[in-house]
Amino acid sequence: MQQPKPQLTSNTAAPKNAKDKKRTTISEIAEESGLSVATVSKVLNGRPDVSAETRAKVHDLIVARGYRKRSTPEPQTPFIDVVFEEFESPWAVEIVQGAMSAAQDHGLTIALTSLSEGDERRVWFDHITSRGTKGIILLLSQLTNNQRADLYARRLPFVVIDPRGEPDPSINSVGATNWAGGREATKHLIDLGHREIGIITGPADLLSARARLDGYRAAMEVAGLTIKDAFCRWGNFHVEGGYEQAKILLGLPHPPTAIFAGSDLQALGVLQAANEMNLRVPEDLSLVGFDDLPISNWSSPPLTTIHQPIRDMAALAVRILLDFKSRKDQAEQRIELATHLVVRESTAPLLS
Amino acid sequence: MQQPKPQLTSNTAAPKNAKDKKRTTISEIAEESGLSVATVSKVLNGRPDVSAETRAKVHDLIVARGYRKRSTPEPQTPFIDVVFEEFESPWAVEIVQGAMSAAQDHGLTIALTSLSEGDERRVWFDHITSRGTKGIILLLSQLTNNQRADLYARRLPFVVIDPRGEPDPSINSVGATNWAGGREATKHLIDLGHREIGIITGPADLLSARARLDGYRAAMEVAGLTIKDAFCRWGNFHVEGGYEQAKILLGLPHPPTAIFAGSDLQALGVLQAANEMNLRVPEDLSLVGFDDLPISNWSSPPLTTIHQPIRDMAALAVRILLDFKSRKDQAEQRIELATHLVVRESTAPLLS
Repeated sequence: MQQPKPQLTSNTAAPKNAKDKKRTTISEIAEESGLSVATVSKVLNGRPDVSAETRAKVHDLIVARGYRKRSTPEPQTPFIDVVFEEFESPWAVEIVQGAMSAAQDHGLTIALTSLSEGDERRVWFDHITSRGTKGIILLLSQLTNNQRADLYARRLPFVVIDPRGEPDPSINSVGATNWAGGREATKHLIDLGHREIGIITGPADLLSARARLDGYRAAMEVAGLTIKDAFCRWGNFHVEGGYEQAKILLGLPHPPTAIFAGSDLQALGVLQAANEMNLRVPEDLSLVGFDDLPISNWSSPPLTTIHQPIRDMAALAVRILLDFKSRKDQAEQRIELATHLVVRESTAPLLS
Repeated sequence: MQQPKPQLTSNTAAPKNAKDKKRTTISEIAEESGLSVATVSKVLNGRPDVSAETRAKVHDLIVARGYRKRSTPEPQTPFIDVVFEEFESPWAVEIVQGAMSAAQDHGLTIALTSLSEGDERRVWFDHITSRGTKGIILLLSQLTNNQRADLYARRLPFVVIDPRGEPDPSINSVGATNWAGGREATKHLIDLGHREIGIITGPADLLSARARLDGYRAAMEVAGLTIKDAFCRWGNFHVEGGYEQAKILLGLPHPPTAIFAGSDLQALGVLQAANEMNLRVPEDLSLVGFDDLPISNWSSPPLTTIHQPIRDMAALAVRILLDFKSRKDQAEQRIELATHLVVRESTAPLLS
């Protein structure tokens, strides 16, 4: 098994106007809301003995005025929190594994929470504010501006892994070199002699999915190959997403001889579709996945895939959180770790 | 998808001699060890400012004398701890998912720890004693008598899921009906007309592996079929365990026409071996797994398997922990939840 070689590329940017703006105080929030300073303080500390209405009023003002708690003493609670929507994904499991290993090196324990959208999040923010945390690793598909401002106001350090939307210079995030990975996967297939190469990528609102598609396009263009619209498919990143799009690709009058799937789960779906259509992988169809999850080693045949250093990404997120209070500049970071190709048995030279 | 129907069978047993024995006190431990009461108390509370030597001395006496802390006020810490050796296993992931869901229903968070054997455990017991926990779910292959006595002395409530060795009436444990599951898997293959049925089960020191094998034997005997020694294989519960044993089974001069694998991961290994030997599943070989993990739905073909209600087992463990302090009798429980067959595409009637 090849060793990943993490390669850091860091962009730092100072939070907007952090220095210029006059700091909002609790008294101002209290005055504007018509509540007592004690009540506002209770809301800020996540105390339960406040009505939902009062809580909402204070939170709206906090967000609107950009209030931020003063620096408080390091909480004694020895936890790093990991929060996600879908723990079922083997991807989330790798994150937890990497975070746990890094946290334990610092004598800390990982606390896990699964959150859907909406009000549940605010309740959880209250809960975590009252019990304390060293920091939060977020694996949420959506983080609204309000939620971000809320975390910021409570001075809860957080890092987003593989952020879904536009990269936001005002938050810490960790990702992988998705474009380079997409390019390398496609180049591997081209080097094997394939010319008719299909791609199944993830949802269009996921930046990582777009980057992988653009990597595919770059490799095709450099090799002077035509990019066919019918060969570029968007599916969800799960098994059924790969299955459905592979059925379409392999059902074309002139189907591709190779497919680059945007995730290992999608690649498993491609294997199911090929199996149903009596196509053998890699003899009749070459297949590359993305992620290098443990399951990529367990399929028949084991998958050629792009290794994404998921555990390293999580470990890095832990380090960013632990450095948070000691960093003078408080500048936010966007870091991408390098991907690399792992060749197993799902790809083969094109038979002419 | 079929719904599991949990079916409780409970054995309760009072801890041995709990009432008869005179209670050991801290003073007695102090006197016997030649240490001060304050120092013994520090060790019992997991405080770090005690030498390793002193700590070991006190712990040895605690275990030898069967000391148990007096009931203390409910800790304020809103955590349930889950501790395991191998988080990588998809099995552990299902446990965490089930425990998290049950814990969140009670406003609690799951804290995760990965522990290897030996000293690391004692350090962690100290850590958890000082920070507090509502209770611990243990997924450890080995829990020594000393470690058990240590947990008991510290009054840390714990439940073991799928205990490895002999069922111990003095600890709480949750499992599944492994014997019934093994019988049902084998009967399904017999009902499809198979007579030459191989089994790959787990390590011989795992009680669940033995129970699945005995379920296979029971079904074979009831059907009047011969159980061939060469058809009964022991492997580890991972993919490579299934792969290695399947290579042996399928390489026999008269190989089986069907295999019951003791875990879904083993079944994936059987698929790999069959694929390499150009055998099609289910046309040339029928295959049943065990666990019904998400991956059993993602393989090609999707696996017929025995559903083990892993999430329900974890949720039940959480309930046992939360009831721990309120239960008057403090009697320990051993509960087994029912398994059931899920038919997918890896099994077919024997072609005559």
